[in-house]
Amino acid sequence: MDVTVNLELIRMAQKTIKGIAKKTPLIESQSFEKIIGGSLYFKYENLQKTGSFKIRGAINKISSLTDEEKKRGVIASSAGNHAQGVALGATAQGIYSTIVMPETTPIAKISATKGYGANVILHGLAYDDAYEKACEIQKQTNAVFLHPFNDPYVIAGQGTIALEILEDLPDVETVIVPIGGGGMLAGIATGLKEINPNIEVIGVETENIPSMKVSFESGKLTTVPPNVTIADGINVRTPGNLTFSIIQKYVDKIITVTENEIADAVLYLMEKGKILAEGAGATPFAAVLANKIDCKNKKTCVLVSGGNVDITLIDRILNRALINQGRRFEFRVKVLDRYGETEKLVKLITECRANILYITQSMYNRDLGINMQEITFVIECSDMIHRNMVRDKILKAEYIISE
Amino acid sequence: MDVTVNLELIRMAQKTIKGIAKKTPLIESQSFEKIIGGSLYFKYENLQKTGSFKIRGAINKISSLTDEEKKRGVIASSAGNHAQGVALGATAQGIYSTIVMPETTPIAKISATKGYGANVILHGLAYDDAYEKACEIQKQTNAVFLHPFNDPYVIAGQGTIALEILEDLPDVETVIVPIGGGGMLAGIATGLKEINPNIEVIGVETENIPSMKVSFESGKLTTVPPNVTIADGINVRTPGNLTFSIIQKYVDKIITVTENEIADAVLYLMEKGKILAEGAGATPFAAVLANKIDCKNKKTCVLVSGGNVDITLIDRILNRALINQGRRFEFRVKVLDRYGETEKLVKLITECRANILYITQSMYNRDLGINMQEITFVIECSDMIHRNMVRDKILKAEYIISE
Repeated sequence: MDVTVNLELIRMAQKTIKGIAKKTPLIESQSFEKIIGGSLYFKYENLQKTGSFKIRGAINKISSLTDEEKKRGVIASSAGNHAQGVALGATAQGIYSTIVMPETTPIAKISATKGYGANVILHGLAYDDAYEKACEIQKQTNAVFLHPFNDPYVIAGQGTIALEILEDLPDVETVIVPIGGGGMLAGIATGLKEINPNIEVIGVETENIPSMKVSFESGKLTTVPPNVTIADGINVRTPGNLTFSIIQKYVDKIITVTENEIADAVLYLMEKGKILAEGAGATPFAAVLANKIDCKNKKTCVLVSGGNVDITLIDRILNRALINQGRRFEFRVKVLDRYGETEKLVKLITECRANILYITQSMYNRDLGINMQEITFVIECSDMIHRNMVRDKILKAEYIISE
Repeated sequence: MDVTVNLELIRMAQKTIKGIAKKTPLIESQSFEKIIGGSLYFKYENLQKTGSFKIRGAINKISSLTDEEKKRGVIASSAGNHAQGVALGATAQGIYSTIVMPETTPIAKISATKGYGANVILHGLAYDDAYEKACEIQKQTNAVFLHPFNDPYVIAGQGTIALEILEDLPDVETVIVPIGGGGMLAGIATGLKEINPNIEVIGVETENIPSMKVSFESGKLTTVPPNVTIADGINVRTPGNLTFSIIQKYVDKIITVTENEIADAVLYLMEKGKILAEGAGATPFAAVLANKIDCKNKKTCVLVSGGNVDITLIDRILNRALINQGRRFEFRVKVLDRYGETEKLVKLITECRANILYITQSMYNRDLGINMQEITFVIECSDMIHRNMVRDKILKAEYIISE
């Protein structure tokens, strides 16, 4: 079966997914425009059904199956968005789905996938274990295995995002898209470039797993070493060969962002955009926020591709971003172990209008003088300037701070 | 000046605010529909410019001023959404604005208000101090004082939300709106009822400051005692007399929600809706989530009125909601003060697949036996069932737990 990913396939996909997937809102962000000196629009695929764009490709792929294949049902392995996309995509078309998820998957994602009607099997600790189990079950049941990105129908399904962007913003000049396996970027780039080759298409990866960037720049499909990232949705070590060839043809540039840049972007989207993005979904905006893309005097559209992130992880991402911004500050001070010493410091901090979140005192460090103890503070400040002001005030009072 | 709030005034307001305020998205929530047995739609005013609906009323009011009044500029006191709405509403119309905010206002709100072009003055610790200062400045400068809710143009501005809801969902059957001073509820109720009296309009207040509910049920404008709430945007102890009379005429029911119900709603909107709502903005959904409103076989629209909440408060709200759901669990266990005792407990918890967030050990409690110490754990569980499973396992191992 030789199916080519092109504008026609994407237009057909748009008809196919209509009524099951949503058209997601495209919203202008005024608060950021002054900073970048251009117009910025967010395409909120985190408000898509199942909380990510994956449902588009899943519906389109499942709909392309023959009646005989549909009867056999579909199977996929995923700890994330693909699981939920396939589950709802199958159920919406009356097809039986089996999803194998690692046992370590957050409960919220497991129950969401079950809620969309899939038969969920938990197996192993990592994605690879779940993948192997899925292959094993596939052999037994003969269900159709659904690849998360390296499939023309999946790519065309994700490409429908390009058509929606152009409906709402026909004169868009730059579109920025996250890259995991490259399915969404390949689809969107095809849609945009085959309608208007002048639109700039940029892909963004996490610095920790830059598989598409390395492949793109070397011209050779490359596997990168394993690594961790808060953008777990795009932790793909080897791009697809199909997605890679399309991206080589249509994408203008691939850039990477750091973990701290991603955390800052998640915080910014929440604080200013009132939107929950997962790490992977925030990478395009992270690139803009870190000033890695020139948006000056241009109309730029940034994909927010998903919002499926465990709340406890969000808590950690926000915490990191607050630390980065100086809004949370942990430091240790050595003091004499006697009456009144803690109060002096607490008073100093309070006079600076900083809020104390946490205090602990210890005299168990062998570097401490025999009559000394060490106090650890975590305080809340307004910003880095305020944090440094508190720090300077304590230093001026002749304490020694270690951070 | 006798201006009546009616459908015509709201229709005029819609023309006035066009191009400055946004039409916000109305999004169906499938994930919740199974639970309530009806269709549920969110109207996301947190995605409005300035992060809340307040900009609508502010633009409309400012636009109604005479040229002479406009030259004098406008003044308001607010620690929240009204500040930002007035600031941008004035700047967008080329009018000078002064906003007096309490010194305790979170830095993010101060800089947002400045960013919208207002002259921001910080004064006092509480809202009342800022209000008094604003009155003082008003007398000196003769600027026009803008009331946050008890004004026909403000009410008509907020009422434009009703027209947008009906554009996107003409057959809506119930609309649920938060109540602070009552401006938004009065405006929306007027718009809806004067178009279709069969639409049910419900207002929601926090149980901690039920000023409109008490007034509504007694038929008499009532001031309630001061109290704190995580829904600080609707902490209004005395409703407006104008808003009250409209609400008496058009609103079907007023119900209250608890602080924990609001926290749960904020978490749910973030986790499932991928949306950041402030406490006040989440009260209508809190009422639905707590099963206090019958949505069965109906089309219900829930206002999410704003998302301007300090991230550190969000952190605390999410923490509370996670505790409520059993996903964070703090408990203390008394153990013998000897080698290996901590390990036994840590092993027990780990075998239950719960994640340890925090451990501290103490031997300073006088209730402890002389050879005992007390360990405090904070652990992460999947849900209340998992939490209780961990608890039962520890109890079965003959430890005494206190929570």
